[in-house]
Amino acid sequence: MTDETLGICPNPDSLPPPYWVGFDLGGTKMLATVFDREFKKLGRAKRKSRGNEGITEGLSRIARTIQDAIQNAEVDPQRIGGIGIGCPGPLDLNTGVLKEAPNLGWKNVPVQEYLENEFNCRVVVANDVDAGVFGEYKFGAGKNARCVVGIFPGTGIGGGCVYEGKIFHGANCTCMEIGHIPMVPTGPLDGCNNPGSLEAMASRLVIAAAAAQAAFRGQAPSLLESSGTDIRNIRSGAIAEAAVNEKSIRAIVEHAADHIGMAVVTLIHLLAPDVVVLGGGLVEAMPEILCERIEKTVRKRVLPAFEDVFTIKVAELGDEATVYGAAAWAASRINASTTRSS
Amino acid sequence: MTDETLGICPNPDSLPPPYWVGFDLGGTKMLATVFDREFKKLGRAKRKSRGNEGITEGLSRIARTIQDAIQNAEVDPQRIGGIGIGCPGPLDLNTGVLKEAPNLGWKNVPVQEYLENEFNCRVVVANDVDAGVFGEYKFGAGKNARCVVGIFPGTGIGGGCVYEGKIFHGANCTCMEIGHIPMVPTGPLDGCNNPGSLEAMASRLVIAAAAAQAAFRGQAPSLLESSGTDIRNIRSGAIAEAAVNEKSIRAIVEHAADHIGMAVVTLIHLLAPDVVVLGGGLVEAMPEILCERIEKTVRKRVLPAFEDVFTIKVAELGDEATVYGAAAWAASRINASTTRSS
Repeated sequence: MTDETLGICPNPDSLPPPYWVGFDLGGTKMLATVFDREFKKLGRAKRKSRGNEGITEGLSRIARTIQDAIQNAEVDPQRIGGIGIGCPGPLDLNTGVLKEAPNLGWKNVPVQEYLENEFNCRVVVANDVDAGVFGEYKFGAGKNARCVVGIFPGTGIGGGCVYEGKIFHGANCTCMEIGHIPMVPTGPLDGCNNPGSLEAMASRLVIAAAAAQAAFRGQAPSLLESSGTDIRNIRSGAIAEAAVNEKSIRAIVEHAADHIGMAVVTLIHLLAPDVVVLGGGLVEAMPEILCERIEKTVRKRVLPAFEDVFTIKVAELGDEATVYGAAAWAASRINASTTRSS
Repeated sequence: MTDETLGICPNPDSLPPPYWVGFDLGGTKMLATVFDREFKKLGRAKRKSRGNEGITEGLSRIARTIQDAIQNAEVDPQRIGGIGIGCPGPLDLNTGVLKEAPNLGWKNVPVQEYLENEFNCRVVVANDVDAGVFGEYKFGAGKNARCVVGIFPGTGIGGGCVYEGKIFHGANCTCMEIGHIPMVPTGPLDGCNNPGSLEAMASRLVIAAAAAQAAFRGQAPSLLESSGTDIRNIRSGAIAEAAVNEKSIRAIVEHAADHIGMAVVTLIHLLAPDVVVLGGGLVEAMPEILCERIEKTVRKRVLPAFEDVFTIKVAELGDEATVYGAAAWAASRINASTTRSS
């Protein structure tokens, strides 16, 4: 129960700002959510991203979506404490410029500056996966753990780390590019023409391509019937369904899980996280199959000194991890800088 | 110039403690060094470790070595601010107990408690490699960098990370076990029976074993003459010498360097360090050959987004990195806790 609910009238300036906005800029859709200071959801809004309409229209769409969420939440826009934006692609963390978003076709987008002018409050930009892991750390599977590592296998394989309450990052860039760590020197090429990276061994795209071959060879008739052999049609849900009925697909998924497990071994040996959170499209579609197999591989291969330090958990916030995390990260950064300067 | 050199008499209690001790507990020798508050070396002492004489005698040898260093430095033992101990093997960071030191044959050694009673000052225990990386961060190749990763290929391959001024570690354990990250699924077994870990591909022991085979086959006559085919006799110096004259040995060293380079790619993609410090016996014996090759591999394989964020440097403190780092880490921890509690 807060002072406000008790009917006491505190000086509003002495209280932390009551509302925070989290925003998730995806390749196909954007999502804005307004939270109160206890991070209860008050309202939200969603739009298609439409990257092809260009940067000026894109920034305006972002602003309109945030405005809609604020309106939907029925709160005073003047009392927004700050906005956290989860963005894909490389960012300049100091200036809040989105340097490149291949899925949107955008380059050098001054997200932070534009939105600070638009909403007259502080805006904090973060990598979308980092924001998602921060969300899981604050409200989900990694709640308050000293060190949380998140791995999100999907079309690519993203990762992030929250260490002692803060997003782990480079000097002026994101890091934890788990999908790009070299795993199998003799493996197939990934999208950057590097052989055997984790993404080349275990992304949804790789699994879909292997499943398409199995379907083509007649080893997965139910998948062939449901999705054909076009990898654009072989989505996580179809793979999950086929993995239950078709031995060939189950084997493909488990083989990919083994590689993800070895990447988790690398992460544990390097970072000794307390919690490893597994999420993303593939994990959401078949949490048991994937996580059981990943955990088995990890337990078999991790050094005895690390056996008892970690747990492996399924992400809890799903699609909302990034909006939760972006809002909470903005609050954490803005509150920290306010405390320092006061 | 300090107040003291100006002839002003400050209240000694208001000044930071004037002396710090750094200690390096190795498998064969132990080293203690006394520093002033600017970390100028004032005195040192060295002893053989003699793990086989047992834990009680071992602790007493550690204390005697520290006493000798204090005597050698000609400082008042009452004015030691704290002692930092760099230890091999798994540690309990909370209690300062050395859980296991296979090279000494010791288990569950209460290093911190024993020395705190002995010297009546705070004692901080750290992993020896972590302490070495902290030394390079404070005084050496990684001076004041936001994130420093150190890799030390020798008999094993150790690693450490200093992130935003602090040693990166697990909840109650060390981490950055770079030698144990899986690199080549089809590779040879390491000492823990895991295939293709970095240590199984690129340690001094692995290089020595490959060099012994080359010598046996008549492909490295100079090495055969200098060191024979017993890997105990094929030390880093002999490998370095042979790598200059014998193509076969050069190829073996470069092949190992390629694997170390790929491990550095993994570290850069995960942690985006500003500085990667290469040290240890192998690097000290042939810094040019190894570092040039490692850097070449890394530059070829690192993602464009990380190209400009890091530099690769040779360690600067050699054998003294751990005593420097242990003393400075103790000072940093003790000063931080004093500031918090005052």
